[in-house]
Amino acid sequence: MKRVYNFNAGPAALPKEVLKRAQQELLDFDATGMSVMELSHRSNEYEKVHNKAATRLKELLDIPDSYDVLFMQGGASLQFSAIPMNFLPKGKIGNYSLTGSWSEKALKEAGKLGDTHIASSTKETGYMSIPSHLELSDAPAYLHITSNNTIFGTQWRSFPSLSPDVPLIADMSSDILSRPVNIEDFSIIYAGAQKNLGPSGVTVVIIKKELLEQCPENIPTMLNYRIFAKNRSLYNTPPTFSIYMLSLVLEWVAEQGGVAAIEKYNQKKAELIYETIDQSEGFYIGHAQKDARSHMNVTFNLATEELTAAFLSEASEAGFVGLAGHRMIGGCRASIYNAVPLESCEALAEFMNSFRTKYR
Amino acid sequence: MKRVYNFNAGPAALPKEVLKRAQQELLDFDATGMSVMELSHRSNEYEKVHNKAATRLKELLDIPDSYDVLFMQGGASLQFSAIPMNFLPKGKIGNYSLTGSWSEKALKEAGKLGDTHIASSTKETGYMSIPSHLELSDAPAYLHITSNNTIFGTQWRSFPSLSPDVPLIADMSSDILSRPVNIEDFSIIYAGAQKNLGPSGVTVVIIKKELLEQCPENIPTMLNYRIFAKNRSLYNTPPTFSIYMLSLVLEWVAEQGGVAAIEKYNQKKAELIYETIDQSEGFYIGHAQKDARSHMNVTFNLATEELTAAFLSEASEAGFVGLAGHRMIGGCRASIYNAVPLESCEALAEFMNSFRTKYR
Repeated sequence: MKRVYNFNAGPAALPKEVLKRAQQELLDFDATGMSVMELSHRSNEYEKVHNKAATRLKELLDIPDSYDVLFMQGGASLQFSAIPMNFLPKGKIGNYSLTGSWSEKALKEAGKLGDTHIASSTKETGYMSIPSHLELSDAPAYLHITSNNTIFGTQWRSFPSLSPDVPLIADMSSDILSRPVNIEDFSIIYAGAQKNLGPSGVTVVIIKKELLEQCPENIPTMLNYRIFAKNRSLYNTPPTFSIYMLSLVLEWVAEQGGVAAIEKYNQKKAELIYETIDQSEGFYIGHAQKDARSHMNVTFNLATEELTAAFLSEASEAGFVGLAGHRMIGGCRASIYNAVPLESCEALAEFMNSFRTKYR
Repeated sequence: MKRVYNFNAGPAALPKEVLKRAQQELLDFDATGMSVMELSHRSNEYEKVHNKAATRLKELLDIPDSYDVLFMQGGASLQFSAIPMNFLPKGKIGNYSLTGSWSEKALKEAGKLGDTHIASSTKETGYMSIPSHLELSDAPAYLHITSNNTIFGTQWRSFPSLSPDVPLIADMSSDILSRPVNIEDFSIIYAGAQKNLGPSGVTVVIIKKELLEQCPENIPTMLNYRIFAKNRSLYNTPPTFSIYMLSLVLEWVAEQGGVAAIEKYNQKKAELIYETIDQSEGFYIGHAQKDARSHMNVTFNLATEELTAAFLSEASEAGFVGLAGHRMIGGCRASIYNAVPLESCEALAEFMNSFRTKYR
């Protein structure tokens, strides 16, 4: 079986070892005589899976006991509404830092539910960079950022420091677990799983416990963080298979040496492609400013649309998948999440070089 | 590999053929060189899966073109909020028929968002039956029912007929696809997948298109049926693997001869266990009134708690899984959804008879 070079932006490549393990035990999980998908979410066997996923994430990200790990559904998009529903009361203002399409969407959903303020934005310069300064509103409920911007290929390389009474909330959907972060700098971190954590269908939320008291009673139960925390994400049937896959991916990350080791590996992968761009004498043009470059999504263009089309077409024939840029900005994008092996990046760099030799 | 007799209430048994197929192609779906979990949700390959699931459901349930099929997340529990958010405007009253714990929860969520009315209830008699008459409020926005009650083991054997201006909304989480229904009797049918449709993590919504115009602009995007319909459930990343499994389960149902054939098969399974109860001379005591008996969840008790405990313990040793009743009512419950084979029911009936011989 030939596996392709998968550079999909999400759902994205999963570790082959994880898929093999899932395949092996798909009809008989842990000697239960059932698939993990057939286990009751109230069974001891499933409990173990569920708890293992939470515990492993806590270990890998060094999450203090003052935080809860929740498993929700609906992706980051549902969090865009859940955050203000829980934490944007009347009289307070939700502050948003705009660094791309996803943060715009987060702002828009909050605007339906309360008062908002744009604390910073790089929209005017095509989201090629990360804001260098912030202007918070009065009475800020929180500051919301998107840590990595899949579409534009930018990433907060360091995070804003706020006064301790302003909660920092980060959508880390596309770079969670790709590098160590100091959890205590954040009040909430959330992430759809389908980039670095597993298949789509589960959303991980890391939330400071002391915030939970603020969750109002009268909001929908399924958007109430306090109820999820109280029920250990088992208020209703969770997406059990997605959480199982998450637990396997987390095990794999631990086997790779943990998040610090993964960061080094990711750096190597990213540098390889960025160097290929930088040494191409303008044949490949990176989209992001150098100091804002994402280690997860490398965005670039070729000189003309024809050349870009030829590149994508020949790359596809050569077994590279997912290299077309987002429909919003076009061009090319290589998404190189945790599970994309260095070999795929080496193959891509080689392909880029030989394509350049052919067409320059 | 020995598979157990799986009577779980959900997540529940899946067809062995479906699991085998998923296992076979887990690392290489349809010659893509990727797992189906690794496909972009914007790829042609995934589009095919997504559309196949919707098309097959339309065929199997004979869904007219005037309805949309949506794939959402969050289970029935999130629908409990989405329904009133979209369809319970000020000045109208959400009518609820209470037949168990799930309909109570649906009512409670609606009560946070608008005015509600209990149109009928069998709560006072321990939810052993289905209401025989309804009293709708003035200005009813809709009538909401739960077609099958997993905890109490009751099922609407026929549905209430309403005047055409009152939309009928049904939570069919635990009996969708178990019997033919006339879709046009309903304005909305929704169902979490984890009983008859596949693994947990996807919620199917069948909705009359003309209703979509009513969905307000200012509600969370992820709870807006109109936006889901407009984007064919691809507004954000759907739970792709769950939808893939759904498509396989639907294919399996078609191979069994469709929903009419499944209904006959289910009837046979249910009759076998109910007969075992009825012929036990009071050794087994059915919970539901005979005319309200569910063909999906058979609930019963034994004379004493000690005997029930012995039954559950010996059943477990004999390879039966999931027979303990819900913690709310105790006793025993055999959930016999579509994918539970007749052989499992035969084995259970046999076990029940020999247990009775031993202990009576």
